[in-house]
Amino acid sequence: MIANPIFWIIPIASIIGLIFAWKFFVEMMKADEGTDLMKKIASYVRRGAMSYLWQQYKVVSIVFVILALFFAFLAYGLHVQNGWVPFAFLTGGFFSGLAGFFGMKTATYASARTANAARTSLNAGLKIAFRSGAVMGLVVVGLGLLDISIWYLVLNYFVDEPVATHKLVVITTTMLTFGMGASTQALFARVGGGIFTKAADVGADLVGKVEAGIPEDDPRNPATIADNVGDNVGDVAGMGADLYESYCGSILATAALGASAYLSAGYDLQFKAVIAPMLIAAVGILLSIIGIFLVKTKEGATMKQLLAALGFGVNVSSVLIAGATFFILWWLGLDRWQWISMSVVVGLLVGIVIGKSTEYYTSQSYKPTQDVAGSSATGPATVIISGLGLGMLSTAIPVLSVGVGIILAFLFASGFDFANLSMGLYGIGIAAVGMLSTLGITLATDAYGPIADNAGGNAEMAGLEPEVRKRTDALDSLGNTTAATGKGFAIGSAALTALALLAAYIEEVKIGLVRIGQHVLTFTDGTTVEVAKADIADFMNYYQINLINPKVLVGMFLGSMMAFVFCGLTMNAVGRAAQKMVEEVRRQFREIKGIMTGETEPDYERCVAISTLGAQRAMILPSMLAIIVPILTGVVFGVSGVMGLLVGGLTAGFVLAVFMANAGGAWDNAKKYIEEGNLGGKGSDAHKAAVVGDTVGDPFKDTSGPSLNILIKLMSMVSIVMAGLTVTYSLL
Amino acid sequence: MIANPIFWIIPIASIIGLIFAWKFFVEMMKADEGTDLMKKIASYVRRGAMSYLWQQYKVVSIVFVILALFFAFLAYGLHVQNGWVPFAFLTGGFFSGLAGFFGMKTATYASARTANAARTSLNAGLKIAFRSGAVMGLVVVGLGLLDISIWYLVLNYFVDEPVATHKLVVITTTMLTFGMGASTQALFARVGGGIFTKAADVGADLVGKVEAGIPEDDPRNPATIADNVGDNVGDVAGMGADLYESYCGSILATAALGASAYLSAGYDLQFKAVIAPMLIAAVGILLSIIGIFLVKTKEGATMKQLLAALGFGVNVSSVLIAGATFFILWWLGLDRWQWISMSVVVGLLVGIVIGKSTEYYTSQSYKPTQDVAGSSATGPATVIISGLGLGMLSTAIPVLSVGVGIILAFLFASGFDFANLSMGLYGIGIAAVGMLSTLGITLATDAYGPIADNAGGNAEMAGLEPEVRKRTDALDSLGNTTAATGKGFAIGSAALTALALLAAYIEEVKIGLVRIGQHVLTFTDGTTVEVAKADIADFMNYYQINLINPKVLVGMFLGSMMAFVFCGLTMNAVGRAAQKMVEEVRRQFREIKGIMTGETEPDYERCVAISTLGAQRAMILPSMLAIIVPILTGVVFGVSGVMGLLVGGLTAGFVLAVFMANAGGAWDNAKKYIEEGNLGGKGSDAHKAAVVGDTVGDPFKDTSGPSLNILIKLMSMVSIVMAGLTVTYSLL
Repeated sequence: MIANPIFWIIPIASIIGLIFAWKFFVEMMKADEGTDLMKKIASYVRRGAMSYLWQQYKVVSIVFVILALFFAFLAYGLHVQNGWVPFAFLTGGFFSGLAGFFGMKTATYASARTANAARTSLNAGLKIAFRSGAVMGLVVVGLGLLDISIWYLVLNYFVDEPVATHKLVVITTTMLTFGMGASTQALFARVGGGIFTKAADVGADLVGKVEAGIPEDDPRNPATIADNVGDNVGDVAGMGADLYESYCGSILATAALGASAYLSAGYDLQFKAVIAPMLIAAVGILLSIIGIFLVKTKEGATMKQLLAALGFGVNVSSVLIAGATFFILWWLGLDRWQWISMSVVVGLLVGIVIGKSTEYYTSQSYKPTQDVAGSSATGPATVIISGLGLGMLSTAIPVLSVGVGIILAFLFASGFDFANLSMGLYGIGIAAVGMLSTLGITLATDAYGPIADNAGGNAEMAGLEPEVRKRTDALDSLGNTTAATGKGFAIGSAALTALALLAAYIEEVKIGLVRIGQHVLTFTDGTTVEVAKADIADFMNYYQINLINPKVLVGMFLGSMMAFVFCGLTMNAVGRAAQKMVEEVRRQFREIKGIMTGETEPDYERCVAISTLGAQRAMILPSMLAIIVPILTGVVFGVSGVMGLLVGGLTAGFVLAVFMANAGGAWDNAKKYIEEGNLGGKGSDAHKAAVVGDTVGDPFKDTSGPSLNILIKLMSMVSIVMAGLTVTYSLL
Repeated sequence: MIANPIFWIIPIASIIGLIFAWKFFVEMMKADEGTDLMKKIASYVRRGAMSYLWQQYKVVSIVFVILALFFAFLAYGLHVQNGWVPFAFLTGGFFSGLAGFFGMKTATYASARTANAARTSLNAGLKIAFRSGAVMGLVVVGLGLLDISIWYLVLNYFVDEPVATHKLVVITTTMLTFGMGASTQALFARVGGGIFTKAADVGADLVGKVEAGIPEDDPRNPATIADNVGDNVGDVAGMGADLYESYCGSILATAALGASAYLSAGYDLQFKAVIAPMLIAAVGILLSIIGIFLVKTKEGATMKQLLAALGFGVNVSSVLIAGATFFILWWLGLDRWQWISMSVVVGLLVGIVIGKSTEYYTSQSYKPTQDVAGSSATGPATVIISGLGLGMLSTAIPVLSVGVGIILAFLFASGFDFANLSMGLYGIGIAAVGMLSTLGITLATDAYGPIADNAGGNAEMAGLEPEVRKRTDALDSLGNTTAATGKGFAIGSAALTALALLAAYIEEVKIGLVRIGQHVLTFTDGTTVEVAKADIADFMNYYQINLINPKVLVGMFLGSMMAFVFCGLTMNAVGRAAQKMVEEVRRQFREIKGIMTGETEPDYERCVAISTLGAQRAMILPSMLAIIVPILTGVVFGVSGVMGLLVGGLTAGFVLAVFMANAGGAWDNAKKYIEEGNLGGKGSDAHKAAVVGDTVGDPFKDTSGPSLNILIKLMSMVSIVMAGLTVTYSLL
């Protein structure tokens, strides 16, 4: 039934990943959660986080049911798409939610345990936090690859298509629908979680730190539990769903491209091209586990040694995966396997360059962020201006490296032939897969940041010794550095995956045409090409998807606009929810006597409720726009308008995302730079100005910026799923 | 020699425009400049502005000489372009500078006279300020159209090309070079002037208003003269050069499109299609003069009546030009003249819709800006977040209306045929020309704003009665409303012109191919087309300028990046220069005794010098990037990469420009809303928070935002001029 037993490596590796995730989880749970107060605080946060997540899943479920019914109507009513779509869509969303749920469950159990371990030593704290992060990393990759394997097997069994090579095209393009489910749920999780966490964070900072002058995470601050809940629902559950989507999206898009690029190479080779990205990912899981075990430090290690220990694990995994790729592609016997492997190496390098550039622009060790800190001497306005300026300038290196990466990955895979589009695009897709193949370990280094952050909150609220808080801060700051690299991979892979999805869209258009019975493309000069034999360039000419077609141009304007409007909606949502939070905290300080003396406990739950409500309401509109705009564009402007929309959204969205993430990061660290005692230190006017920058940066870097990554891909996924509708009905 | 005597209407109308400008100037100069102190202050500002302008022209001249030599080398050394290029380029720059110079000279003479007239009545002040603005408006359109006429006559005499229809193509495409000169000088003027004015403004506000608590334009503030100089060099000279460039750019691009769209229609009709945009502009000058004379109010008019008076002039001119267009195109005998005229109407409507949307999002009479003001209750951070959110959301209506406008203008002119690219694009170009045809009067309503602003400064510094200051404030605020409409036309026409320039670029590529001896396009499938007979769609296929070509995609990423990097550089320049200004003002307050008591005059000149230096240094890099990046993109990626760059820059740049302009405008007016006594009024914490927003908004709306309009077109102009180089030498 399955052509080649090599396939089974994929589900087996994914199950191994899940087993190790379980093992790390059980180990973490064995650790002591500390004092009664620590347990109580952790349970507050856990309860808040879980109640938020259930609330969010309720809303998202309703949206999913509506969309699934709509897809069912398109499939069974209008017959413009495959009947598998509603089911694949639902599973994608379910598994993505599951990945976020497991990650968050682990994180909320781990924070008090990390704080408690940090009472012993920095090292003990690192171990708990990092292994808990690894649970998240392995759950994401394990569930992702398992879901892909299962769907492949199901579709392979059920799809009724006599020609084997065509069947593979149908299977891989149908599976993209599952990616749309993951993207949709990820967008809700990122946007909802992002609004929750930043509304709480901004609210807690503005009143607590700025007005009342009490430290971060002080238990007297009514918004402090909401702030810690936010770290879990935004930075953990949101990020988990986000990367689950990236991971699956890149693998599925590349598989679909493989099926079409190798269509005429015979079933055996085509099958191998399809499973190549999955195999790279599978081997990546195993190598990530090895990397996780390599992260060890001796007792009493310095910060630098800790960083080196983390870096060692990631670097070993990355080098091994690069080597393994050459082996896998050689073993599969793909033509020019060396060059296709080189595309993967290009992908890895692009990720590293973007990560380094993120670090340069956002770390207080370098001049740009120090300049932002310096501009605080003249007040908040100049902090904002210089941070925005820095963010805008910081887009240059990522764009240039993605640009070089696109060209090289394309040329290597295409045999240095710009006309060989399908192989070139396969190269770009597989570069994205290579970039994300070590996600098991890179996500572990990412996800442990919020765990350490929460551990710090727990330590502060439980009144542990300042030494402990210092250790959790050290862990947190370590996480910031590794997170920069993680961001580089996330955004770089989003750009490459979105490009691969463009090509997958054309494949889907092809299938749509065949479904409605159009078997021939007739060009303006009267020549014809059979749809089944048409290549991507033929479709470009047929639909006039060029830069002078007004439908394409209008689509591109719309795409650029979508990126900005989407960010505007999420920024405003954070602003509004934060204002409500500020008013509530001020009210509690005013009305509940004894808060400031510590005699009365503030009403934490009301603050959690405000963030929850703000997030739930405000996430609907931006998320629905991401789904509705591509559908409408397709219905009005047809295929060429959709392509314009996707490319406009991709290019403007990518640059906007880098701008927002880096400006936000720089403001955050400029504030930390001053808090470290520079330029007047904590409490100085400069510090107050820097806090304004940090507050503006919060929605930049944790709500709008990262959501853009998903927006870009979700719009592509929606267009892909809707291609049947677009080719059947379109106005212009 | 000139085929049709109708042509002579064009230079005659332009000369009539200049004569009226002269008349208004002489009338204004006859008015009394007021007290000795008023004269002294005006002379300070005039001297500062002139010395800055000369300094700027020196720097720009050097750049122009270098570029002209480079063009001469390309033309006479490499033979990749026309020998007229260096000369046309130089005149374009010269006339653009001249327009700015005359406008500024008028403005600096008019400000004290306006203040003095305002001592009599609001009406008297309006008359002086508005007529002075009209000088600027008529100088810009008069010089622009005169320059176009002269070059047309010169090239018509000298160009040696036997086939008349081909000669017209050569003439119109060569004249685009003159547009590049205008764009280059405009970019320097906008960027340099924008940095100057905002560094002074931000510096004056931060120390004067916020720290020392003295009112705007207080003579004790050392930066106040620099601030007033800035209004002249940025808002007057910069805006004049900017709109000169827009005006000429739209006419020249449309003429070039007309020459190619009507190439096979015979010389007579082709000639008429070429002069059609010029004739519309010529008639627009005459109708603008009529409109200017219609602006009259009776003594004791209310603000609303004043606004109605201005609106009446503009509306009459607009309606008349719409009607006149139908007449002109009918008279010329263009096929389907009704429909082409409808494209012009579409252009006018798009401009009005964008203007109204700008007003809605940035006026304190509406909810969005009031919400930004409301967010000041929770401090500067929420003001910034809500302003950024507003700016991002405000991009929707302009994008949608430009989108609808593009489709309609295209369909009307093309006979509802998406495949008729050359006529459709001619329609888009002529829509832009229609939009700008009433520039004579719309610019008058725009340019009188800074004159009124300066008059207010003069009144304050000269210690005139508060009543006078109130009147100048009223004039200024009136100007803000009309400026919103002006901005709508400026940005809308920039988008449409840039689209027309894309098509002009392809024309230039065609000419370049013929020059290097390539007379045939051979496609991948082996079919061929003669270059001379190839249409735009053929070039799209030949160069694969489609959305899946990696060179196009990389170009688009670069274009989006250019918009952001350009803004980052200008934002940072303002931030840095403002910081220096703040330090200088603080130093003067500290070191020069008696400033605050009014006994000693502050050192105004040092502040002017700081702004000058900051502007001169910082304008070089962003402006040169705008020239070098398109050249390099062409050399590396060829024609398809350049097209990607231009479209990416256009779509992302347009949206970014709207975002920045509207966020800045909303912050400005949110502050004014509070100053009008709402939410605590002047001096409250809310006001302080709003001042931070206003300060951040200054470079948004007056430096980076408006410069983007020029950047978009300059990159197209550079690519057009460099097309010969690109087709001869390119790497990939």
